[in-house]
Amino acid sequence: MAAEIVNPRSDSDMQEEQDLIDPAFALHRGGKMEITATVPVRDRGDLSLAYTPGVAKVCTAIAEQPELVHEYTWRSQVVAVVTDGTAVLGLGDIGPEASLPVMEGKAILFKQFGGVDAVPIALATTDVDEIVETVVRLAPSFGGVNLEDISAPRCFEIERKLQERVDIPVFHDDQHGTAVVTLAALRNATRLTGRSLGELRAVISGAGAAGVAIARILVEAGIGDVAVTDRKGVVHVGRTDLTDVKRQLASFTNNAELTGTLEEALDGADVFIGVSGGTVREEAVATMAKGAFIFAMANPNPEIHPEVAHKYAAVVATGRSDYPNQINNVLAFPGIFAGALQVRASRITEGMKIAAAEALAAVVDGELAADCVIPSPFDERVAPAVTKAVAAAARAEGVARR
Amino acid sequence: MAAEIVNPRSDSDMQEEQDLIDPAFALHRGGKMEITATVPVRDRGDLSLAYTPGVAKVCTAIAEQPELVHEYTWRSQVVAVVTDGTAVLGLGDIGPEASLPVMEGKAILFKQFGGVDAVPIALATTDVDEIVETVVRLAPSFGGVNLEDISAPRCFEIERKLQERVDIPVFHDDQHGTAVVTLAALRNATRLTGRSLGELRAVISGAGAAGVAIARILVEAGIGDVAVTDRKGVVHVGRTDLTDVKRQLASFTNNAELTGTLEEALDGADVFIGVSGGTVREEAVATMAKGAFIFAMANPNPEIHPEVAHKYAAVVATGRSDYPNQINNVLAFPGIFAGALQVRASRITEGMKIAAAEALAAVVDGELAADCVIPSPFDERVAPAVTKAVAAAARAEGVARR
Repeated sequence: MAAEIVNPRSDSDMQEEQDLIDPAFALHRGGKMEITATVPVRDRGDLSLAYTPGVAKVCTAIAEQPELVHEYTWRSQVVAVVTDGTAVLGLGDIGPEASLPVMEGKAILFKQFGGVDAVPIALATTDVDEIVETVVRLAPSFGGVNLEDISAPRCFEIERKLQERVDIPVFHDDQHGTAVVTLAALRNATRLTGRSLGELRAVISGAGAAGVAIARILVEAGIGDVAVTDRKGVVHVGRTDLTDVKRQLASFTNNAELTGTLEEALDGADVFIGVSGGTVREEAVATMAKGAFIFAMANPNPEIHPEVAHKYAAVVATGRSDYPNQINNVLAFPGIFAGALQVRASRITEGMKIAAAEALAAVVDGELAADCVIPSPFDERVAPAVTKAVAAAARAEGVARR
Repeated sequence: MAAEIVNPRSDSDMQEEQDLIDPAFALHRGGKMEITATVPVRDRGDLSLAYTPGVAKVCTAIAEQPELVHEYTWRSQVVAVVTDGTAVLGLGDIGPEASLPVMEGKAILFKQFGGVDAVPIALATTDVDEIVETVVRLAPSFGGVNLEDISAPRCFEIERKLQERVDIPVFHDDQHGTAVVTLAALRNATRLTGRSLGELRAVISGAGAAGVAIARILVEAGIGDVAVTDRKGVVHVGRTDLTDVKRQLASFTNNAELTGTLEEALDGADVFIGVSGGTVREEAVATMAKGAFIFAMANPNPEIHPEVAHKYAAVVATGRSDYPNQINNVLAFPGIFAGALQVRASRITEGMKIAAAEALAAVVDGELAADCVIPSPFDERVAPAVTKAVAAAARAEGVARR
């Protein structure tokens, strides 16, 4: 391989300059995580237990009883955070290396909020089958796989194919994490206003990873109706331009048989869920049903500005931390994986996701208010509640192995 | 995927029983390592720097200047410890899961001795090209690859093909770690006895990963002659049963043109290096040249028992921690990777390995004695000395990138 010598002085000058410009650079220097040993390696005695010759007995025991790998290694507490760097935050396809700061961030959130170890794995391929093959081969080292920032529609196929091939949970957080937190907020909005999911008609702006997953979980949870829109308007069965995923989406959504634009769909709708990054004109917002719920989650610019939304809606949520009711995935994924790993679940079912949403919603039962339909990301009750609910649901659904 | 429910009570009973039997099991419970964050994630302010929105600026900077990934992520301090579980310790092909305790052990040694983070990656494939492809795809997430416990001759091909495809160091420790420490011990044995490498004829018992690598580094370092033996005797150009690797080995070893058995080859030899696990009869040991060096490294049963070896040899080394002069890879790999990562080397050259051996040998310059030709694994001078020497050698050889 070719190598070049870079003058370290000019390199560090440039970096010091960047550090001054933004504290995020200073914080990221050297990365955000490390490995630490949980057993001592101070002397020959330690070494002879943690490494040779003592370790050989443990290896032999696992070779004889494969399930012991979960007892005697970190496998059942470690998740691979896998990306191909194609849909990173709002930045798009920036490649595996440039996605690493996000994957490290995710990893430390896993630890901080769920007590789950996580390893960033940014892959040098964007081919669906290569990604699946690669993760199948990695699977013996991990207790679960969190797919992250992989572009739609590839993310759907990767998740499905991968889960068919491995017996550890595969969870695309951009889909299901967002869906779980959205459902939790919606449950509490209905409770607060004395309504039920079954009487609501929702419109989702955005038919990517999050939009598809939210539509699915809302239907699963019993929403009255949901229409999903993409740039060309409502995704409906009459359209001839749909991908496989959108055709399937059309088949189980849009009972109202809408065919128009997003803004037309909002006329009389009870719920707006924005995961698109587009914008909705105030005139259209004004046509929504009285006492609507507006979850405008695009970040940093919500599809409907909270101040506008509040004029027409009973409950407003965003993706931003500087407004109340932040729909933040960190409320879901740490506890979901912690619960799944605790019972060695082979997958994360829809029932487990709904249980996570119920538990998350219930955390703020006592404080329920229009500006508190979802807990703060730093509410310490969240992860234990979600963990417990997900573990119980896994047992109930027959996917737990302990 | 199928799932079964195991009664957790009987499971834990069984495990408690095992823990009583052997302290190694108790120590291994839950694994030996964890991930920890090196930055705070206590409040919204922390989150906005370590994760969104702050992280986006760091991602964008890396997308624009790819080499910044080494500054602003943990990539340049983390090594993948990759195995397929085919040659684990002396246990053989026990598969990826059962190999994990060794890989975790290796990972914590990397951290303890070299300050290098390391992640166990046990792969669910034993196919050479699949292993290479998989690691190529993982490469953007790691600063280096330590291949571990992969059986010969596949290990040679995997290392070669992989290093051709990635611009981070690939190092099969079972080969090169052993070779570096062996060369260091041999250097000091010659210094102690006033001899030079060039006047020595060595015999290596074992033509697997370690044997081949030791032969290569000894030739590179200027040994007088070296013959390598496998189960059928000396590996020589006249044999028709040789693999590609052994044919190549025959081409650059055995200047003496030996053709007989291991024990015949020992007649008059100056050095015995055992990496085979076989045994050598005392009668054969007695035929070695006066003042021989015997490095019988099979573990736990050296090819020649140290008490027998001492009758005939000036310097005796083993792989065991309960005898002096332990040839232990932990003396090499942490510092070698730490040095390579420090200068972002694109590979680990023969020159870097020899520099590592020289530095390792020099650590005990002041204490040189027949029972001290190599430092203790817990000698704190070792890793810094090896790190510094390897970094300098990488710069001298033009493979450093900073």
